[in-house]
Amino acid sequence: MKIGILTSGGDCPGLNAVIRGAVLTGDTVYESEFVGFVDGWRGVESGEVIPLPRRKVRGIGRTGGTILGTSRWNPFHGGADGAAAVARSMEETEVDALIAIGGDGTLFTAHRLAQRGIPIVGVPKTVDNDLDATDYTFGFNTAVEIATESLDRLRTTGDSHHRCMVAEVMGRSAGWIALHSGMASGAHVICIPEFPLSIQEICDFVTARMRRQPRRSPLVVVAEGFTPSDASESFSDYELDEFGRPVLGGVAQKLAPIIEERTGIESRATVLGHIQRGGAPTAYDRILATRFGMAAVQLVHAGAFGRMVSLRGTSVVDVPLSDAIDSVKTVPRERWDEVRRLFG
Amino acid sequence: MKIGILTSGGDCPGLNAVIRGAVLTGDTVYESEFVGFVDGWRGVESGEVIPLPRRKVRGIGRTGGTILGTSRWNPFHGGADGAAAVARSMEETEVDALIAIGGDGTLFTAHRLAQRGIPIVGVPKTVDNDLDATDYTFGFNTAVEIATESLDRLRTTGDSHHRCMVAEVMGRSAGWIALHSGMASGAHVICIPEFPLSIQEICDFVTARMRRQPRRSPLVVVAEGFTPSDASESFSDYELDEFGRPVLGGVAQKLAPIIEERTGIESRATVLGHIQRGGAPTAYDRILATRFGMAAVQLVHAGAFGRMVSLRGTSVVDVPLSDAIDSVKTVPRERWDEVRRLFG
Amino acid sequence: MKIGILTSGGDCPGLNAVIRGAVLTGDTVYESEFVGFVDGWRGVESGEVIPLPRRKVRGIGRTGGTILGTSRWNPFHGGADGAAAVARSMEETEVDALIAIGGDGTLFTAHRLAQRGIPIVGVPKTVDNDLDATDYTFGFNTAVEIATESLDRLRTTGDSHHRCMVAEVMGRSAGWIALHSGMASGAHVICIPEFPLSIQEICDFVTARMRRQPRRSPLVVVAEGFTPSDASESFSDYELDEFGRPVLGGVAQKLAPIIEERTGIESRATVLGHIQRGGAPTAYDRILATRFGMAAVQLVHAGAFGRMVSLRGTSVVDVPLSDAIDSVKTVPRERWDEVRRLFG
Amino acid sequence: MKIGILTSGGDCPGLNAVIRGAVLTGDTVYESEFVGFVDGWRGVESGEVIPLPRRKVRGIGRTGGTILGTSRWNPFHGGADGAAAVARSMEETEVDALIAIGGDGTLFTAHRLAQRGIPIVGVPKTVDNDLDATDYTFGFNTAVEIATESLDRLRTTGDSHHRCMVAEVMGRSAGWIALHSGMASGAHVICIPEFPLSIQEICDFVTARMRRQPRRSPLVVVAEGFTPSDASESFSDYELDEFGRPVLGGVAQKLAPIIEERTGIESRATVLGHIQRGGAPTAYDRILATRFGMAAVQLVHAGAFGRMVSLRGTSVVDVPLSDAIDSVKTVPRERWDEVRRLFG
Repeated sequence: MKIGILTSGGDCPGLNAVIRGAVLTGDTVYESEFVGFVDGWRGVESGEVIPLPRRKVRGIGRTGGTILGTSRWNPFHGGADGAAAVARSMEETEVDALIAIGGDGTLFTAHRLAQRGIPIVGVPKTVDNDLDATDYTFGFNTAVEIATESLDRLRTTGDSHHRCMVAEVMGRSAGWIALHSGMASGAHVICIPEFPLSIQEICDFVTARMRRQPRRSPLVVVAEGFTPSDASESFSDYELDEFGRPVLGGVAQKLAPIIEERTGIESRATVLGHIQRGGAPTAYDRILATRFGMAAVQLVHAGAFGRMVSLRGTSVVDVPLSDAIDSVKTVPRERWDEVRRLFG
Repeated sequence: MKIGILTSGGDCPGLNAVIRGAVLTGDTVYESEFVGFVDGWRGVESGEVIPLPRRKVRGIGRTGGTILGTSRWNPFHGGADGAAAVARSMEETEVDALIAIGGDGTLFTAHRLAQRGIPIVGVPKTVDNDLDATDYTFGFNTAVEIATESLDRLRTTGDSHHRCMVAEVMGRSAGWIALHSGMASGAHVICIPEFPLSIQEICDFVTARMRRQPRRSPLVVVAEGFTPSDASESFSDYELDEFGRPVLGGVAQKLAPIIEERTGIESRATVLGHIQRGGAPTAYDRILATRFGMAAVQLVHAGAFGRMVSLRGTSVVDVPLSDAIDSVKTVPRERWDEVRRLFG
Repeated sequence: MKIGILTSGGDCPGLNAVIRGAVLTGDTVYESEFVGFVDGWRGVESGEVIPLPRRKVRGIGRTGGTILGTSRWNPFHGGADGAAAVARSMEETEVDALIAIGGDGTLFTAHRLAQRGIPIVGVPKTVDNDLDATDYTFGFNTAVEIATESLDRLRTTGDSHHRCMVAEVMGRSAGWIALHSGMASGAHVICIPEFPLSIQEICDFVTARMRRQPRRSPLVVVAEGFTPSDASESFSDYELDEFGRPVLGGVAQKLAPIIEERTGIESRATVLGHIQRGGAPTAYDRILATRFGMAAVQLVHAGAFGRMVSLRGTSVVDVPLSDAIDSVKTVPRERWDEVRRLFG
Repeated sequence: MKIGILTSGGDCPGLNAVIRGAVLTGDTVYESEFVGFVDGWRGVESGEVIPLPRRKVRGIGRTGGTILGTSRWNPFHGGADGAAAVARSMEETEVDALIAIGGDGTLFTAHRLAQRGIPIVGVPKTVDNDLDATDYTFGFNTAVEIATESLDRLRTTGDSHHRCMVAEVMGRSAGWIALHSGMASGAHVICIPEFPLSIQEICDFVTARMRRQPRRSPLVVVAEGFTPSDASESFSDYELDEFGRPVLGGVAQKLAPIIEERTGIESRATVLGHIQRGGAPTAYDRILATRFGMAAVQLVHAGAFGRMVSLRGTSVVDVPLSDAIDSVKTVPRERWDEVRRLFG
């Protein structure tokens, strides 16, 4: 059996470990052959593949990014008959089944393809941890560790200068990275899209922290998708990207000067940006990604098309690809109430 | 309400985060007062306490070890009437309830005390991840990350010198740290107590790895509690500690020369030892430990004595302390079969 | 003898190690007593001091920032008679001599005070490595390691998406951090204030890199103080801070879209910002800072006022404070020629 | 011109950066061609080479070990006419000049070869920092950072359990790694071969530290080549390796039980071992190694055979290979006196 793998959407630490896990398992257990489609769906459409023999994946589990390249392409783009295009490509490349590694968009595409008879399974990927179909995916753990290490660093500068440090982390529609890195670094305020604080509440926390003895620098962690509940005009003009989503780097730089003006406490913005999603994955993400890759190959060989791998508790299970659709996993009320107790 | 906290048994990254989570929650939500018993049960017995006001726990969530100190003491030691001693100490120190943070021994002691009417709740702690009553505890994630980083380092030396590197990690009765760090670092053989390979099998993997192109150095990860299934005389004379358990540092140093002799491949042993359990906890462990500490205080205020906090999936729940007894969580067959597919 | 220590200017990893080195040496060798002035010169002027007994400095050598606080105050500010004010404060606080830890501004102030008879010695501090009076100072090594780790992470995202990553690091008048972190991470173009490339040259390097096989993502490292030699209008409107210097975060965000427009290669800007100067110092910086602190106390006890400690080769020596004035250490031609050979 | 590169002796972080620096410079500036001899002198003797085109060295500067392999071979071994053998191999492989990267043994061999007319230049390598012919070499900085991070971890376990932690680091004839990592981690006693303390002195420091308030765990750092000045019988029976040097892992395990017995303080030994010399080099080492590789190629093209590159202050210079012979750089008296002031 010849299996084609593709990685699609934003890069994420662990993609290469998925590829390695799949290839090693396929080679050892099933004697499958593997190829990788170059740059996600774009490579599927154009039929551009690279062979993936066992030796090609040696050592890549410890590396960031994806050796296959990625893009934001989509075979149904512009109303195209995506399934026909994919089927044609598979025939040309003699690929019998597909493993698609990607986020909600990719998994939705995979679902549509499976419905049209394409033999495909999915591996969920989201740095933001916003997919309800799995407890966690790889990449999130790495992002939280990097963000936390950076927040620990910002704190010492804040304390030395008696400044309020405002740090922006990833998270457009879900505040998981802000919640976790904020808890881990002992942030005094955490701003997430799900439970928007008002500017006044934020300033009140900042002021309260600064007044308490021993004096400590207020540390504010804000998810990139956060908008204050009493959003002033400054927040109405987010620069938007091609998908109409706020551009990374907007919110902390808007928030810091407002905090400084209202509280009189010198404030500085830092945008962690792309360093959160690059580089070597943590051991946690390497393991999860490896297990996902191994399980995906088993799904293929079991003929369980239209399904995706998923983590539930400590077990890797499989669920329908449709579970990944229309189900953004946001921070629930109880986790917000929990973290609120640590503020101030 | 005045709550006494104690940490008992081997130290573990995250203990301080538990203490901080408990104190901040108690202070914010319940206006509880906290004291810490010095050096675990020894401090309970002697009534030696230190006050734990809010400012005392600021910043400690990011630090390793325990600010309270720890010991391997036990109030029932030598047939003593532990419950009476603890009750007397609580009266003298005016402590209304106890939070005991510790491993299976400590939780068993807490269970016995609860049965005798002592108002006590438990927080599970095990670097080895060998407690069945919870999916994970804090400390394990940190240990795996440290071990993995060390294994990544050993690999380059092995590759440069064409040596077989044998690394010993923690894990007396359960091979979780070996399993996870071995998977994360791409080890070629993983030796755990649950599924003992024979020396011959280990040597076969080592030789096979060395012969395959491109030539790569064999990396063998071995849990400290491993004994080969065909244990030679060399393995029968483990040095034992006070509890009759093999002393850390025995097995890799026995295994490496045997591998070298049988395969003709130069082999070197490294014992990671105490660096696996010290120092700053990972963000993952800080978060889990903080949530455990917060939940423990809620158990106390709910009067749910005789219970302990536990992680199930992504939720912190509570279970009876008796769940922690006689239930070592070993690596199950399916995880072993899974990792075996990656060997060689 | 009672010695007062102050830290002034921007914070820097290693300040606490200087303080610890001074106090431990003074305590062990000279039986000196120490106090710290709060928030730099501001504390000197107001006479706000905290005692610095031996136990107060235990463990601080491993921490970032400064336990004394810092500010950008200056006793000669606004034409004030700084020497008189400092002398009065020393009398009130019964301080016999001062150790001033700071950058060129602070050292210039110390020089002026010494000329007016104040018993003061200096310890040089500059994250940017732009002081000619010493081979290196503490903080620079930490900043380069942090920047390099971040650049390593950006590279994997660039490679996966075939993007040009533009990373901005610290360095207003000197490009040392860009030079070193760029060399260490294998950047394809390094932009420093001393040897300004034109936008066209930068784009040529970027295009050349992208065209060569195997295709690799261009990585551009740019010092915050860089202006292209053919600076377009976009570069003429740097936002300036209170000292008339370009605000951190300006240049990469200007450069990336220009590169994208001219080369057709998708480009992304990242500003590392404050994470470069916060958090735990590297071992290198802890050692250098400790040695500087120890040597400063020896200068005080030798009565060598008006002098500062300095690293020459592997030796800590002392030089006149006047050496630190008007002598910005920029990247010399031979280091630029050297790194140019690695471009493209 | 065709240049052959070899790496010889123990592996060391930075070897690959030297190779990369040489190849990139040779390619860009001189249009030289490069080959690598496999496994050091063994490959020179057997004429086993691998081509080193520019693309082969891309990205390797960030990796540990050596892509060329290494061994402890020596062409003069057993009285052989090494120069004739090397000359013959160079002729067969059409190599015009050699760059030998290695420690004192390798540099001595290179010196002998140069004296016999072989066109060869040297690059010094020593993790232990024990070569007098250069201020520092690559690898040492990485080793100190790894050791320091491990010592920081051991400290928290020591403090929690009130134990004395004894950590053994590399350093057979020179105590540089112990000196630097001990200073950086704030160790209470540092034991180096150059200035042997007696067991009684060590125990006195340990006891003094434990008695002082606040109670802190004594941390003892010991170089592997240390022998107490009053060496008991236990220290007379070091296991020796093939070169008659004490085997790594001997001294801490001898010292800890003696300390425990004499002071009554529970003591634990940890041997850091091979993790100190493997894995990714620090930015510092990548830069130094890159500069060394670049400079070595320039020496070759200048015909400066019989010379080696060297760091003096911040400059890369060149010195005769004979400077590397018979000149072990040990810790000098003033550095020992300096660190002694921090003990206890």
